[in-house]
Amino acid sequence: MNQRPVVVSMGDPAGIGPEIVLRALRERPDLREQVVVLGDVATLHRAARLSAPVGDGSALGALVLAELDDIGGWAARPSGSVAVIQAGEVLPRLAWGVVSAIAGRAAAQAVRAGAAAVLAGQARALVTAPLHKEALAAAGEPFPGHTELLQAQVAEHLGRLPAEVPVRMMLSAPGLATVLVSIHLALREALDAVHTDGVLQTVRMAHAHFRRTGVDRPRIAVAGLNPHAGEGGLFGREEIEQIAPAVAAARAEGIDASGPHPPDTVFMRARQGAFDVVVAMYHDQGLIPVKLLGVEHGVNTTLGLPLVRTSPDHGTAFDIAGQGVASAASLLAAIDAALAATALSA
Amino acid sequence: MNQRPVVVSMGDPAGIGPEIVLRALRERPDLREQVVVLGDVATLHRAARLSAPVGDGSALGALVLAELDDIGGWAARPSGSVAVIQAGEVLPRLAWGVVSAIAGRAAAQAVRAGAAAVLAGQARALVTAPLHKEALAAAGEPFPGHTELLQAQVAEHLGRLPAEVPVRMMLSAPGLATVLVSIHLALREALDAVHTDGVLQTVRMAHAHFRRTGVDRPRIAVAGLNPHAGEGGLFGREEIEQIAPAVAAARAEGIDASGPHPPDTVFMRARQGAFDVVVAMYHDQGLIPVKLLGVEHGVNTTLGLPLVRTSPDHGTAFDIAGQGVASAASLLAAIDAALAATALSA
Repeated sequence: MNQRPVVVSMGDPAGIGPEIVLRALRERPDLREQVVVLGDVATLHRAARLSAPVGDGSALGALVLAELDDIGGWAARPSGSVAVIQAGEVLPRLAWGVVSAIAGRAAAQAVRAGAAAVLAGQARALVTAPLHKEALAAAGEPFPGHTELLQAQVAEHLGRLPAEVPVRMMLSAPGLATVLVSIHLALREALDAVHTDGVLQTVRMAHAHFRRTGVDRPRIAVAGLNPHAGEGGLFGREEIEQIAPAVAAARAEGIDASGPHPPDTVFMRARQGAFDVVVAMYHDQGLIPVKLLGVEHGVNTTLGLPLVRTSPDHGTAFDIAGQGVASAASLLAAIDAALAATALSA
Repeated sequence: MNQRPVVVSMGDPAGIGPEIVLRALRERPDLREQVVVLGDVATLHRAARLSAPVGDGSALGALVLAELDDIGGWAARPSGSVAVIQAGEVLPRLAWGVVSAIAGRAAAQAVRAGAAAVLAGQARALVTAPLHKEALAAAGEPFPGHTELLQAQVAEHLGRLPAEVPVRMMLSAPGLATVLVSIHLALREALDAVHTDGVLQTVRMAHAHFRRTGVDRPRIAVAGLNPHAGEGGLFGREEIEQIAPAVAAARAEGIDASGPHPPDTVFMRARQGAFDVVVAMYHDQGLIPVKLLGVEHGVNTTLGLPLVRTSPDHGTAFDIAGQGVASAASLLAAIDAALAATALSA
């Protein structure tokens, strides 16, 4: 077994993050031997009480939180306990489901502590519970989400500009994985972002990721942009002018890339097993099929960073936070994905 | 039982159309009492022999083709037989899977004959087997597919210009239906086609269609165009400027429309039962999720015409035409959809 743990950041402390982290570790005792939770320890204790259904005292009784001073204390933790570390400031008792600057700041601190641990070689991967965008903004964080925050942190770590650390979002559901050429852009701007370099870079990142997870020769389908992949230029020329050259360049590098494929059938074909991953040209092209197949088991993986980072494919669910009803399925899938992506480097 | 039949056009005679039509009627004997097949009778006889697996003589023996002179002869057909009418020219023996002008012309003739029969009140609905676009073009037809061909024919019938007969494509898979604001446009042009009038018209057409099929108050979800439906203008303003006003106008007319919804989750929610239909802003937004859920049972319905027209959601499959292996599932779903859409007017 890998002696370095996966670090899991608690997410926004007013959202479902803390409770699903503890629920995941209650449901899967094996993971307690592989995970350290980063966040506010008092909040995590409250969340541990939420994660057991009323009347189910047995599993609750079994969930012991062991607070470590740092990840170095990992090896000495009591077996079967949940290792937790206070990352960032000690929080007052926050109301569940309420946006606040203090919650946003604490959430960001847990993420940064986790990334730092992986970059320092103390942890093998980072799994992040959901952030709340408005809370981040209230805390003065200039990042809309994890991806951009981590990109900036890694860039600083490497002494580069954020733009020099290109990242991509990969979304996976059971049977389907997609990597997005662009994410949070208006669709009009996303069209302009479909250029040969960006597509080729996305293909390379997807290739590198699947290689790292043990797929020897990943089959990468590159989607077209237009209906029917432009039908030979009849419905748009981006396939001819931008996408096909990227596919050709990737193939010249020995990557098993194909396309541009008609967007409306490439995801169906990937799900049927024809491809390992689909490179999608814009946010919704890739996210519509992945979410349709099961947001409850969706995993978000950031590609391009010198660290493995995954997260559940859902938000903070403020409407049900604190009720102990949120599912840990997507978070569990994210932890499993992080373990799988680092199994070869264990 | 409705005394008027559904007419089924054979599709491109070199594709899988003829064989799936006969296979459908072999698998579902009840439909022989509700369907007339239009096309080249000799081709249909050949296809009937293909539609039975080798060695399965029983069902083959039961498939009797009864050639009628016209739909007026429908009532007098032998019970249990498949009613067929020679629509258009008598064809020589064509090779399966080969594009030809003669095949494209014959296919178009069968469609036009079918539409004319419905417009004349002789048939209750039209179901079309797949056309081949290149064969149509080789035959000098200026239409890329059924929708545009029928739009022109209906416009002529009504004494209007084609542009005065707005049509929309609805795609359905089990558990999910979507109506598209635009279809065969480059994505860049499709963005420009997202305007209040077009969206509102699409919502109205979807409403009228579901009302006709017996849904008293159809729940119509209108998708956004941009990631997260623009997130309040952060990622594009089409939601604010074009789509939301269309939703408001539809609601003012008493239509149960909602949105604009984030595109990446609205299809998932519709499938979970939250909506009867999703109005999609462009081709792939709607077709990706529908095809993912099962192209093998997908149905294409044309909205806006004064006739009910459905078709299977697949093409001519020239690669397997003539082998007797093509599935009739999607065509059967299309026939059932046509019957359902005309059940109230029976």
